Amino acid sequence: MSDILNKKDFQIVKEGITYPKGIKAAGIKSGIRFHKKDVALIYSEKIADGCGMFTINKFKAAPLVVTEKNLSLSRGKLQAILINSGIANACTGEQGLKDAWETVEYVSEGLKIPKECIAVTSTGKIGEFLPLKKLKAGVKEAISRLSIQGGTEAAEAILTTDTQKKEIAVSFELNGQEVRIGGMAKGSGMIHPNMATMLGFITSDISIKGDLLQEALKQVVKKTFNMISVDGDTSTNDMVLLIANGLAGNHLITEKNEAYVQFLEALYYVAEYLAKCMAKDGEGATKLIEVEVQNAFSYNDAKKIAKAVINSPLVKTAIFGHDPNWGRILAAAGYSGAEIDTEKVDLYLKEKIVENGQPLKFSRQTLNKYLEMSDEIKILIDLKMGKENAIAWGCDLTYDYVKINTKYS
Amino acid sequence: MSDILNKKDFQIVKEGITYPKGIKAAGIKSGIRFHKKDVALIYSEKIADGCGMFTINKFKAAPLVVTEKNLSLSRGKLQAILINSGIANACTGEQGLKDAWETVEYVSEGLKIPKECIAVTSTGKIGEFLPLKKLKAGVKEAISRLSIQGGTEAAEAILTTDTQKKEIAVSFELNGQEVRIGGMAKGSGMIHPNMATMLGFITSDISIKGDLLQEALKQVVKKTFNMISVDGDTSTNDMVLLIANGLAGNHLITEKNEAYVQFLEALYYVAEYLAKCMAKDGEGATKLIEVEVQNAFSYNDAKKIAKAVINSPLVKTAIFGHDPNWGRILAAAGYSGAEIDTEKVDLYLKEKIVENGQPLKFSRQTLNKYLEMSDEIKILIDLKMGKENAIAWGCDLTYDYVKINTKYS
Repeated sequence: MSDILNKKDFQIVKEGITYPKGIKAAGIKSGIRFHKKDVALIYSEKIADGCGMFTINKFKAAPLVVTEKNLSLSRGKLQAILINSGIANACTGEQGLKDAWETVEYVSEGLKIPKECIAVTSTGKIGEFLPLKKLKAGVKEAISRLSIQGGTEAAEAILTTDTQKKEIAVSFELNGQEVRIGGMAKGSGMIHPNMATMLGFITSDISIKGDLLQEALKQVVKKTFNMISVDGDTSTNDMVLLIANGLAGNHLITEKNEAYVQFLEALYYVAEYLAKCMAKDGEGATKLIEVEVQNAFSYNDAKKIAKAVINSPLVKTAIFGHDPNWGRILAAAGYSGAEIDTEKVDLYLKEKIVENGQPLKFSRQTLNKYLEMSDEIKILIDLKMGKENAIAWGCDLTYDYVKINTKYS
Repeated sequence: MSDILNKKDFQIVKEGITYPKGIKAAGIKSGIRFHKKDVALIYSEKIADGCGMFTINKFKAAPLVVTEKNLSLSRGKLQAILINSGIANACTGEQGLKDAWETVEYVSEGLKIPKECIAVTSTGKIGEFLPLKKLKAGVKEAISRLSIQGGTEAAEAILTTDTQKKEIAVSFELNGQEVRIGGMAKGSGMIHPNMATMLGFITSDISIKGDLLQEALKQVVKKTFNMISVDGDTSTNDMVLLIANGLAGNHLITEKNEAYVQFLEALYYVAEYLAKCMAKDGEGATKLIEVEVQNAFSYNDAKKIAKAVINSPLVKTAIFGHDPNWGRILAAAGYSGAEIDTEKVDLYLKEKIVENGQPLKFSRQTLNKYLEMSDEIKILIDLKMGKENAIAWGCDLTYDYVKINTKYS
């Protein structure tokens, strides 16, 4: 994928979810979160192909169950996505499911679109019920305010403990037609004092067959959203949705041709950008950490090591303390379960500091300085065994993480 | 095992590693750690059966390699165990191995015992070499001070970031003979600013066949030392050693008879006690957390959930904040990978607060108070699916954990 990224056959635009043709959005205050925006709505003028990826947590929240059901009923068609923050509607049993279906009704009635073409999703406190009255009024208001200028407001309305909105858009050409992709996300801790979740929403006006859309999403999520970790806690509400309404007017993509690859590139960029935003905005974080593992026997090995290092509390606190504590990085690689020849491993932190499993002489002061001054810390582990690579993103572990997560729920 | 514990066919004694007959120990200052004790020696007058369990980290430290080799050369016989704190002798390559063998020589020459009956182990900074001159003198002094009063000094000499020594002893009768077991351990963070490791040493004067001794250790470690976690980081130097010199004079145990079970009970108690001490003394910890999972389909499922909950930073910070945040506990159970019927799960925190996957009404204030006032927090998850149980121990995640691990190495 990194080869792909180097090509960059696309433009990056200061826009978000409403950049693709025919996409409108709104973000409003319904009163769930007091003075903060808490309801977002995304709407495609034309029924779009849609697909999603959902949490693997067994306690899957009600809105995810409803959205998966709708995607199956509509055979992969979506026209609107409703998101509320403040309450996750997770661990809420039958009532929670009923409530989620009820919110589908609000959107269906308000927009006069088929129920099965509506996705709903929630993020916030676990074990509390949706305030339906507020949501009903909120949906009504959101519908009345849908516009192509509404992207940023929508990106704000889905946040919980996030300190920054996360949105991006790109465009590229296919058969002389401009194709656009827009995205927004939220995610800070996997779960904050009962506030939850990683959410990603990506829209496009590309014309592409539904199964290819699904495959592109899968391939991209695996290497982007699924490679970030703030605290190793997988939420009950994680969801990424991708819709494509075909309004760009390119020839319908029906196979994995050059056009598909171009789309994949751009989609990958959007997903990686949003994923990195989330890692960087991890609860209490001061730094983005990128761990790249090179030349593993298998992709799985590379991934195991990258994730073990990015999740290690000892690596995370060391980086918060500007401490080039390479022993902790190797130790995490060593317990990851991946195949390693410990006498071959090289480790780079700004420069090569371990060769063939043993420390080189390096200036601790220079590395302290690098760790102190850089917002993005890169760790590279070269296993020198095979040809597979993986990258994972995370953040440091700070006093503020403990503070944020210690507050009473 | 909990049935076994309820029987308690043994006495608990305020003693340590030197309580069994024929065991002497010493703990002295060799200068590796400035004014702290840093060399411990355990010695059995009679060559003992010995066995060990070692880290699964691929970066296995040199002393572990040497000790495993010796146990194989001696066919499971041990007479002395040398431990140093301050330097881990991990990631030190050929030189590290040479150095570890050199320390075996010091002990062998000083005590005039076969080299292959000596175990060596280190805990401390990764990537630094042992100061052989200091160690040579240290071993000499330790040998000169070996005594049956030396247990506590030895227990002190193996500590690093630990705030308290960890030792215990028990006795019970077999065929009218008193049999004794003594133990000591260290462990606080799996790795502190390059300071490392969980170490456990258990001595006994029981007379038992070597292969049964090994089997008893395996069975017990699996449910005690292997069920604690401070930060999920597995050290390069983890090691548990058990020796039995037969001086108690009981009939040699050659099969899994009643005497074996009695030994297993007592050994389990010693190991569980030491393991809980380590979890409670976790870096920065204010509370011991015990997670019990009941009625899982398989032991593995029960273990997965217990470990996921005990390792969840969100559960750990919630408990530090006295926050009965049950959603985080269920979420961790949900992503553990274990089989769960989410509509059956009951959760107890002092009282039953979740039934069949949904919250009951409970007094948040009462639970806040419980979490605030108790040093030991018990979480019970009843899956109501099968018959298998597991218990794991850990600690809360606090500002002090971040502080301790943020300091420059």
